[in-house]
Amino acid sequence: MSEQTNPIVEALFLGPKAENRDDFRSMVADALDEHMFWRRDYFPADPAEVGAAERAAAPYRATIEATEQVLHELSARLKDQSVPWFSPRYLGHMTADTLMVANAAYIMTMLYNTNNVASEASPATTLLELEAGADLARMFGYDTRRSWGHITSGGHTANYEGLWVARNLKSVPLAMAAHPRAKELVAGLDRHQLLSLGVGAILDLTDDLKRRGIFTEVRALTARGAGAEPGELGKLIVPRSRHYSWDKAADVLGLGQDNLSPVDVDEHCRMDMSALTKTVEGLIAAKTPILAVMGVVGSTEEGAVDPLHEVVELRRRCEERHGVSFYIHADAAFGGYLAAALRDQAGAFMDLPQARQRLDGLSPHPGATWPKPEVHAAFKALAEVDSITADPHKMGFVPYAAGGVVMRDRRILDLISYEATYLVQSFAKDPDWSRPVELGSVIIEGSKSGAAAAAVWSAHRLAPLNVDGFGRVIARCVGVADWFYQKLSHAPEFRAEGRRFTVRPIMAPDTNMVDFTFLDLADRSLAAHNRLNEQMYGISSYVSGRTYAHGFNTSQTRLTRSAYGDTPRRLAAARGIDTGDWDAVGQLALLRSTVMTTALDGPDRLEQYWQELLSIWQADLTQIARGELLRQTTSDAVAPPAVATPAAAPPGQ
Amino acid sequence: MSEQTNPIVEALFLGPKAENRDDFRSMVADALDEHMFWRRDYFPADPAEVGAAERAAAPYRATIEATEQVLHELSARLKDQSVPWFSPRYLGHMTADTLMVANAAYIMTMLYNTNNVASEASPATTLLELEAGADLARMFGYDTRRSWGHITSGGHTANYEGLWVARNLKSVPLAMAAHPRAKELVAGLDRHQLLSLGVGAILDLTDDLKRRGIFTEVRALTARGAGAEPGELGKLIVPRSRHYSWDKAADVLGLGQDNLSPVDVDEHCRMDMSALTKTVEGLIAAKTPILAVMGVVGSTEEGAVDPLHEVVELRRRCEERHGVSFYIHADAAFGGYLAAALRDQAGAFMDLPQARQRLDGLSPHPGATWPKPEVHAAFKALAEVDSITADPHKMGFVPYAAGGVVMRDRRILDLISYEATYLVQSFAKDPDWSRPVELGSVIIEGSKSGAAAAAVWSAHRLAPLNVDGFGRVIARCVGVADWFYQKLSHAPEFRAEGRRFTVRPIMAPDTNMVDFTFLDLADRSLAAHNRLNEQMYGISSYVSGRTYAHGFNTSQTRLTRSAYGDTPRRLAAARGIDTGDWDAVGQLALLRSTVMTTALDGPDRLEQYWQELLSIWQADLTQIARGELLRQTTSDAVAPPAVATPAAAPPGQ
Repeated sequence: MSEQTNPIVEALFLGPKAENRDDFRSMVADALDEHMFWRRDYFPADPAEVGAAERAAAPYRATIEATEQVLHELSARLKDQSVPWFSPRYLGHMTADTLMVANAAYIMTMLYNTNNVASEASPATTLLELEAGADLARMFGYDTRRSWGHITSGGHTANYEGLWVARNLKSVPLAMAAHPRAKELVAGLDRHQLLSLGVGAILDLTDDLKRRGIFTEVRALTARGAGAEPGELGKLIVPRSRHYSWDKAADVLGLGQDNLSPVDVDEHCRMDMSALTKTVEGLIAAKTPILAVMGVVGSTEEGAVDPLHEVVELRRRCEERHGVSFYIHADAAFGGYLAAALRDQAGAFMDLPQARQRLDGLSPHPGATWPKPEVHAAFKALAEVDSITADPHKMGFVPYAAGGVVMRDRRILDLISYEATYLVQSFAKDPDWSRPVELGSVIIEGSKSGAAAAAVWSAHRLAPLNVDGFGRVIARCVGVADWFYQKLSHAPEFRAEGRRFTVRPIMAPDTNMVDFTFLDLADRSLAAHNRLNEQMYGISSYVSGRTYAHGFNTSQTRLTRSAYGDTPRRLAAARGIDTGDWDAVGQLALLRSTVMTTALDGPDRLEQYWQELLSIWQADLTQIARGELLRQTTSDAVAPPAVATPAAAPPGQ
Repeated sequence: MSEQTNPIVEALFLGPKAENRDDFRSMVADALDEHMFWRRDYFPADPAEVGAAERAAAPYRATIEATEQVLHELSARLKDQSVPWFSPRYLGHMTADTLMVANAAYIMTMLYNTNNVASEASPATTLLELEAGADLARMFGYDTRRSWGHITSGGHTANYEGLWVARNLKSVPLAMAAHPRAKELVAGLDRHQLLSLGVGAILDLTDDLKRRGIFTEVRALTARGAGAEPGELGKLIVPRSRHYSWDKAADVLGLGQDNLSPVDVDEHCRMDMSALTKTVEGLIAAKTPILAVMGVVGSTEEGAVDPLHEVVELRRRCEERHGVSFYIHADAAFGGYLAAALRDQAGAFMDLPQARQRLDGLSPHPGATWPKPEVHAAFKALAEVDSITADPHKMGFVPYAAGGVVMRDRRILDLISYEATYLVQSFAKDPDWSRPVELGSVIIEGSKSGAAAAAVWSAHRLAPLNVDGFGRVIARCVGVADWFYQKLSHAPEFRAEGRRFTVRPIMAPDTNMVDFTFLDLADRSLAAHNRLNEQMYGISSYVSGRTYAHGFNTSQTRLTRSAYGDTPRRLAAARGIDTGDWDAVGQLALLRSTVMTTALDGPDRLEQYWQELLSIWQADLTQIARGELLRQTTSDAVAPPAVATPAAAPPGQ
């Protein structure tokens, strides 16, 4: 298909009824045959290891039978216990059907078992990983002549890589000041000024160091070689809605969690800019360095998008007024791929009216309201942040494990590299990726699956990262999420056993995640509300047994006071929940639906689906009202252990 | 198959001629069908998303065609550029054919796209990961009631996890001394004594802290919360033969590479115990803490096995004489699975005569000499080290990406956990893994493929980790490696264009890796030797083009003075190389063959293979003698960028 032929969304997935069964089987069978005959064609005269007679012998067949038995046991376990992500009846975590092309590509490549640690072990697939990384960079508006990106094992690793380069970069000016032949380059700067230089300025200084032939010596004096005093490199500012991987990152990278500086979120669960500004200005006044500010694009619990455009603007102001800069990382692990829907076929970032118009035409639900203006602005600002996490195995619809990270200025890799870097070549033109590359020398991991990279690459080729390609998939997600939000906002009351219940969304979604909640109108206390929603979660999840038997499965979240301050109380009050017991309860339990189904493809199907949902919920609420819950779904068993901070971590990353 | 029926090795792999093509196709087709009908059986009355007519429509077919085109391009790239690992004609990196059951299990599980970050996203496969981890623990002689293990994205991550727990553990006594209600537990100990407590002693102290209800408070004062002063936690002692991931680990974990303390290797490329003893005693005398000693089981370049039994004994002596203890981690990323061959069917570690006798019966080459006594002793000592890296995607013969790590005392997880830990349950019995587990809270990664874990689990079920199961695969590897070493030791001279060449192994292998070297008898200088071997590598690798066209492919290594001191000079001299130019050249270039082929199954096949190898090498040397090398295989193009330290990092991990 040329990129002019736009993909049909239904033809991209196996489908909730395995509608594309014949085509998928054929693709996989072809991949197997192609590989198997490739083996035979390598020195065709080489002897076969075993012949037909040996293969037919009893002990041989016993081993084959044993293999089938192991696979049978595995299949039985999978079928019994797996969650039917593929169905629109699942709206929970960031999981759904995955792209056929990605699955077939993974299977095909796995047979060659390439290892992207170095070109030598993956002459074909290292290149695919770099191409896939460049696709991401382009989607975010980076200049691919200067940036780089690659596929990680997941969002955690991508976040670690962002923090790793930020940490080592931050320590460069101090290292220069400590080196006899480098210190003149930073002469006159005091300690706080050294720790407040901008990313570009530091990287330009590393160019000077390379010219003087002392880069390696100075690098040995950075955090990489010498470590760093606790707190020396400053604070890592994060929103309270951060994913828990950031707390792990502060631990793993040796910064210590004391150097995380959490900022409150507003009533949209976005980083509160006035709180951030206050934090930043307070640190500047105290001459405490700012290691980095991390903004979230699609928070794990709410899908909220932090105002990155305002963070970028704040940095500009701090540079201008105070001479203080800082690194910015965007954790777009969940929301990153939504950017595909905001670029036209030529790759240009569309303005808001154009984007909405295009997406409205692609949405199964007319009257698209995505993106909100502030969300649109935040996505646009991604081009100006220093690094971005964006996971193909979430909104990229490829199977696990495939995370992604992109960096705006790839000179930064030299601060972590373990080889003469091949990657930082001339900036005059696109790098020559055809030269052998040893990825292992510039990433956290080493041996890694080439198949994962091939899966992502294939997905990007089939459905390019623009509104006419992959944007068609995204349009369904945000369109149906908006529809779901609207329906929940006006859902009829449920009556059961003389009790009345409502269901309502908790806020308008920034992305394709909808948090919502049931309420017993006769007992609006927060404690009763939470218990009810835990029961609904129990009924709609593995907690009450096999999810395959449930007509609807979802996930839950708890917005705790320790993580979110009083924002959850305000959200709850606005939905009619009596929050008088907020101080005692300290958390708001919600249901959480990431809308990734592409199977609801028009108004009729949506309406049919809604009626089905209402009848399922009616039955669930009746069951609850009658006290008929199974043992496992009582509140005690439902409740996971309390998590203090950050927000309860679902398997979202 | 009951575990009493021993597997036939040939029936475990697809085979170099895809001999098991029909069976493998059938297994994969079954897996696909099973999954596809599982979809259909979920609420059977739900409407199909698309019907036959829509699927037959032109735009729909265009998308399917486009999918096939992307897959076709991928297939073409893979077939053109991939390295034929599956053939005995490839003896290089740690790559070979992979187990059919692991591939089929991966494919099957990928369709369900489970995510092992938490049980909720992988009710079936989180359990499989823990079972696979317990298999590894058992193979190393750990008590599975107290230990734990799991599957990582690779060896890097496994090493990071080992260092992470070691680092945080080391900082516990200092944190206790800084806590008003904990300090009495470590009263009377000076700083050096606090930093010299043993692993078990510290973990027992954490039990005290838990009983007093102050564990979380104290933990917040450890490196996790507060970071650590550079060097405060002491030295990480590593052999010079370490994998480069350890240098990355010291950087990533915030220790700083200055706190790596490399120890010389002996003429077997094993950690030199007298050098280690001197280093350890010097640190003790200087009251410098020892964070950990890392020993390698199967070094990346030579397959050498460090004398772990002596390291364990050294620790015991230091505890006794000086009251100083340290953490021990074994990096058995490559060699770990060889332990399977040393356990009998009941799981007992066999003594040396018994092991050799059993393996001799399973080896295609009679007169097995594996394991050497000191290697046997080192494997036995694995039961006494604190954590071990062992990668299924290396000697476990499963596809990428699957690393593994096991920890002897799982209480240590509480030092890194991000949830109330489910894992540290009663030590009275095997833990109840059937309870929901949130792996993401006790590992470095988050979202991760359940398919990788299922692949490892399936492999362990089909070929259990003992001499009668997976040991049969290992027996071929070590047996053929020994055979290869013997043949190289007595290989005939090659004559070409009036020149005479020899080929010789550089040392007797500890495992199934053989380093060897060609020598021009008319120019024995080290420089000429290195050039010749680089040319041979060029001819036998991707450097000279498509590996598929080569009759033999291998890998290379360079033992540099900066990494290995003078050991390479001595090794070279022993093989008749004139090392007068050692000071100028500073490295020894070798060919490096990991022997993982199971296709050479008896003396006749081995002899046929050897004759073929000799004739290929004869042709290669003739080509070199005639100066007929392709442009790409000239020394300049062959040479990868010089690597200072540590040893050149091949894609082994």
